[in-house]
Amino acid sequence: MALADGFDVDRAFCPDFHHAVELVGRRWTGVILRALLHGATRFTQIRDAIPELTDKMLSARLRELEAEGIVTRRVTDDVPVRVDYALTEKGRDLSAAITSLSDWADRWATTGDR
Amino acid sequence: MALADGFDVDRAFCPDFHHAVELVGRRWTGVILRALLHGATRFTQIRDAIPELTDKMLSARLRELEAEGIVTRRVTDDVPVRVDYALTEKGRDLSAAITSLSDWADRWATTGDR
Repeated sequence: MALADGFDVDRAFCPDFHHAVELVGRRWTGVILRALLHGATRFTQIRDAIPELTDKMLSARLRELEAEGIVTRRVTDDVPVRVDYALTEKGRDLSAAITSLSDWADRWATTGDR
Repeated sequence: MALADGFDVDRAFCPDFHHAVELVGRRWTGVILRALLHGATRFTQIRDAIPELTDKMLSARLRELEAEGIVTRRVTDDVPVRVDYALTEKGRDLSAAITSLSDWADRWATTGDR
């Protein structure tokens, strides 16, 4: 996506980007994705890593991410039943964008101007 | 940000990333940033590039971005008064993350699995 100097109205808006940025940026979704990218696989691992995240909200966001094809939910018929979450290829492919935004946050937050 | 295989609970959550991803991902903010990155400088340029974006919502989001130090608003004492918006260094530095997410959206949306 070359960023023009003049105003490039045709390429300024992209509905797919619009959907993606508001999906990833939805309340809690970004930090849940980041936890998964950091290797979390269990519900309690994700919930306990993220302050103030409730079970109800985490369940809702994981269902949305499943519906988007970003996360899979695998149930193992054990006693007790075991549930593991994993990023799909589509989910893992978000790593570059999440890392890039994380690095931006590190650069600008550390200067204390927020 | 190295992505561990095992679960890296200490680095799984970052409050600065949490703030950043929900700032950029807020309703309309991502596509407004993208329009600015594509060279938009005037209020009407941004509004007309983004379907269904209202004046009221665009004004609110531009004020938030100004408060975050991501956008500047320059008033030229002309007849009529001229207002130009521009990304700050902090704002321009979002380009990599926005581009990365745009590319992700292009990759995955084009396969029609959304």
